[in-house]
Amino acid sequence: MKLYGYWRSSTSYRLRCALELKGIAYEQEPVNLLESAQRGEPYVARNPFATVPMLEAEGRDRAQSMAIIEWLDEKYPDKPLLPADVEYRYLARELGYAIATELHAPLNLPVLKYLKNEFGQDQDAIDSWYRHWLAKTLVPVEKRLEALDTGDFLFDKPGLFEAVLIPQLYNARRFGYSLSDHPRMTQIERACMRLPEFERAHPGNQPDAH
Amino acid sequence: MKLYGYWRSSTSYRLRCALELKGIAYEQEPVNLLESAQRGEPYVARNPFATVPMLEAEGRDRAQSMAIIEWLDEKYPDKPLLPADVEYRYLARELGYAIATELHAPLNLPVLKYLKNEFGQDQDAIDSWYRHWLAKTLVPVEKRLEALDTGDFLFDKPGLFEAVLIPQLYNARRFGYSLSDHPRMTQIERACMRLPEFERAHPGNQPDAH
Repeated sequence: MKLYGYWRSSTSYRLRCALELKGIAYEQEPVNLLESAQRGEPYVARNPFATVPMLEAEGRDRAQSMAIIEWLDEKYPDKPLLPADVEYRYLARELGYAIATELHAPLNLPVLKYLKNEFGQDQDAIDSWYRHWLAKTLVPVEKRLEALDTGDFLFDKPGLFEAVLIPQLYNARRFGYSLSDHPRMTQIERACMRLPEFERAHPGNQPDAH
Repeated sequence: MKLYGYWRSSTSYRLRCALELKGIAYEQEPVNLLESAQRGEPYVARNPFATVPMLEAEGRDRAQSMAIIEWLDEKYPDKPLLPADVEYRYLARELGYAIATELHAPLNLPVLKYLKNEFGQDQDAIDSWYRHWLAKTLVPVEKRLEALDTGDFLFDKPGLFEAVLIPQLYNARRFGYSLSDHPRMTQIERACMRLPEFERAHPGNQPDAH
């Protein structure tokens, strides 16, 4: 498998976490978002969404990180990212998809560029925007974790939810969002960061990190 | 089951399509987004995301439409929304999640309100924003459909992808986005709109439509 990604892209980071947790070997091919390499040929012919990550696997160029994570778990049932129980699967997906659907898009680089270039917003306004949407989703995720009385992980070991959460917390810190009212998710973060899988997936440890 | 939703919310519409396709009976309880009912008590205590839809089902208040759709398909295997084949499941999810993750959030009502209230953007600017993000995802979805040489549906019958697509096309029309370069998805739309399931799920046919 070959992963086309960018070291600091949260969806690339998410997919690296998932691949590492499943113990699947992959090569990496960096795509430089700052140089808009994702919109150049031949990349865009393979991935018309012009996004990272893209996973070349089993004869197909796969372009959407959540769909890829679900596929990995169905295609390679070893080391599952979702629990076996249908109700627990729902809980992991509710929290994972909350972050992936509500939170990812307004914080995505093309959106931030649009705010700057089309709406003339300065960095302070963009930082406030970023923190506003982080709070809107991370606060209720924290409430759900509290109701579930989580410990080091959502369930007994990290999986889909943790693969989505950890990159978003990395982003939250970059944008100065305070996690002090989020003890449940920061406990999960600390537990994950002690694992070699998350260490290997970290942006700072990627070939294109700078 | 009881569905808390809003007639014109695309995620409520998406979940109605899924429930109808699965043939699952449900009651409806409208939540008036224009009066911010989703942020009032007791709703927000049950759904801390303060969003619609919420599905009360099997003893839990379920809050994320894509997680609910996946859960419905696992809990009630009759009339599946995803095909059985792992590769086809990937394809349906790639296109469905592209719309749900990339496209939903920047077009969501709270985001549009933020652009108006915090960034002082007028309706023309907001309409351009809306159409910009529609194009960024719908154009590559159309390309994927073309590569798959689709007919009336993504596969042999409508499922997860169509439940996500149809509400987004309804939104696209509302915001004056031209679908003339999207023959594959409009063929799917026409085929779906001939089915009683999609007719019943349509915003205009909900108890709170006005």
